[in-house]
Amino acid sequence: MGSSTQNGVVDKGVDFANYFCTYGFLYHQKEMLCDRVRMDAYYNSIFKNKHHFEGKVVLDVGTGSGILAIWSAQAGARKVYAVEATKMAEHAAELVKSNELQHVVEVIEGTMEDITLPEKVDVIISEWMGYFLLRESMLDSVLCARDRWLKPNGVMYPSHARMWLAPIKSTLVDQKMNDFEGSMDDWYCFIDDTKNYYGVDMSALTKPFTHEQKKYYLQTSIWNNLHPNQVIGTPVIIKEIDCLTTTVDDISNVRASVSSSITEENARLAGIAGWFDVHFRGSSENPAQNEIELNTGPNEDSGTHWGQQVFLLHPPPRVQRGDDLKFNFSMIRSKENHRLMEVDLDIEIKQSSGKLLPQVRNKFFIE
Amino acid sequence: MGSSTQNGVVDKGVDFANYFCTYGFLYHQKEMLCDRVRMDAYYNSIFKNKHHFEGKVVLDVGTGSGILAIWSAQAGARKVYAVEATKMAEHAAELVKSNELQHVVEVIEGTMEDITLPEKVDVIISEWMGYFLLRESMLDSVLCARDRWLKPNGVMYPSHARMWLAPIKSTLVDQKMNDFEGSMDDWYCFIDDTKNYYGVDMSALTKPFTHEQKKYYLQTSIWNNLHPNQVIGTPVIIKEIDCLTTTVDDISNVRASVSSSITEENARLAGIAGWFDVHFRGSSENPAQNEIELNTGPNEDSGTHWGQQVFLLHPPPRVQRGDDLKFNFSMIRSKENHRLMEVDLDIEIKQSSGKLLPQVRNKFFIE
Repeated sequence: MGSSTQNGVVDKGVDFANYFCTYGFLYHQKEMLCDRVRMDAYYNSIFKNKHHFEGKVVLDVGTGSGILAIWSAQAGARKVYAVEATKMAEHAAELVKSNELQHVVEVIEGTMEDITLPEKVDVIISEWMGYFLLRESMLDSVLCARDRWLKPNGVMYPSHARMWLAPIKSTLVDQKMNDFEGSMDDWYCFIDDTKNYYGVDMSALTKPFTHEQKKYYLQTSIWNNLHPNQVIGTPVIIKEIDCLTTTVDDISNVRASVSSSITEENARLAGIAGWFDVHFRGSSENPAQNEIELNTGPNEDSGTHWGQQVFLLHPPPRVQRGDDLKFNFSMIRSKENHRLMEVDLDIEIKQSSGKLLPQVRNKFFIE
Repeated sequence: MGSSTQNGVVDKGVDFANYFCTYGFLYHQKEMLCDRVRMDAYYNSIFKNKHHFEGKVVLDVGTGSGILAIWSAQAGARKVYAVEATKMAEHAAELVKSNELQHVVEVIEGTMEDITLPEKVDVIISEWMGYFLLRESMLDSVLCARDRWLKPNGVMYPSHARMWLAPIKSTLVDQKMNDFEGSMDDWYCFIDDTKNYYGVDMSALTKPFTHEQKKYYLQTSIWNNLHPNQVIGTPVIIKEIDCLTTTVDDISNVRASVSSSITEENARLAGIAGWFDVHFRGSSENPAQNEIELNTGPNEDSGTHWGQQVFLLHPPPRVQRGDDLKFNFSMIRSKENHRLMEVDLDIEIKQSSGKLLPQVRNKFFIE
């Protein structure tokens, strides 16, 4: 009970309580609609590639307030199916009507897995990306839509996605260690007080409490919009996804062995940052006229609501320009909640002198 | 989907995702165990009334880390059944063992509604109280335990509970109105920007967004540990519960018409605070030797983790010493989640001059 999956089968009620509920709030929709990097990328992808939309049938998976469906209609689509699992569907329908597009856009309240469309579609558009691309596992629903409803020569919006890792410097590593140590200090006072005032020895819980707090403060990845100068080595791609061909199996288990070179003279490797980009290229049979990129990496001018996910290293090793970092990365879905992730990240540092530092194994949670 | 109840039947998976999950964290248990007012009251209720425990069979409903079960055993219980729905049961079992009470305390992982005991019990002890007493609806499980397992002359710990209301002054009313207005200002900028930059008119969502934000900022009760001098009128009791005889029906729908007199010379009635106390009196056949009270009202020296729930009035009326406030109060469980509450609070001010101000109707949510 409480798990969103049991023997691999998703409990829909639990999944709504844990996940979909957030998307039922206009406040949350507004946050996404105010992300200019996100908005500009989708807006340009549509309006600079009108040939993909004019006279075509479009499916918007997880339409939310309906913005992508409305743009698709404004770009000339003959018909747009806008599917939304939450009550936000009602607001999307209102918005479609007040923008006088109800003859083109049909809002359907339901999950992609459950609903049926009257026809196949030319374009599937969706903003399915979660933190570090795959958190939320929403791409599954887009692939379900693709396999059921996309015409043979149809195109995916976005068409491609990539996951990146890069070594960074950050004082977050000290903050989080302080928080953890503070919490443990509190705990030991609590153990003493409970023994002295209330005659109960709680010390048997010190081990599980330490485990819980370590996970919370040190092993849970942290949302951050990094400045580019915090990146101290070459960013590397750990996963490339072609939305037209990828499968749920392919994205459920991400593995990569990659290397990054330290580019900073002398720095403390506080952690590894993960982010993603997606591209709107259409398909090889039906390419975009103007390729658009949505990049969520560290940027001086504009962050996104996705930011980057930071995996901190405790203690942070010192590194020098020319050091080679070898990452063994693996990410799987959490057993308790298939929309959250567990990351194993082993790091080996080969110094420019040739000396090899012992590999450090790290376990992280994307919550 | 997403509701914890459907046609009055609780979906257990959803209930775990929404509710029980919190209690699976030691951090959360520690917060409760560090509440000295709470700890002292339960500790004294047990150790100053050992006659209720010596040689007796005790049931602890929702034992958490096991503290009440351990105290019951230390006070001389022959047998203690400690029931816990979450994985915290494993930690409770460890703690029982490390305090060498495993021959007395038996930890049972399961819900009170599902499990079976091998015998009836003399005492049911439980810390079931939520914010404003009834949030979380955990008393239901205690009453289920009572009806199934308490011996005819058994006692309830606590035995009685009361809910209180009092008029207060507070600057929270200004803060929350500022927050609301700030959020609406942001919204109107967002509407303009989305129209200008992205060609979509979002103004159809202004009404539902206002509704959502009003609910969040102005109609959701606020946790606060008030100073006693913020109370500007006589506190009044709106509900008395005898834990030995009350029923789920009795606590599902709380209604009261009560009056409070303003005691402050000239003040702004920022809101109404709600809190509770519980008493440990045993039963009339089997009374406590030392009655203990646990009071969560405004207190100069020590707050509790329950604090008070504040229902703010927008705009706050001015009141004078001697004004009479008449409250028509009603609290029911939320349809979507039976552990959350909806409050209707109508207030009529009769000034000492005899002039009657028009009744103001208020709707609040305890989330």
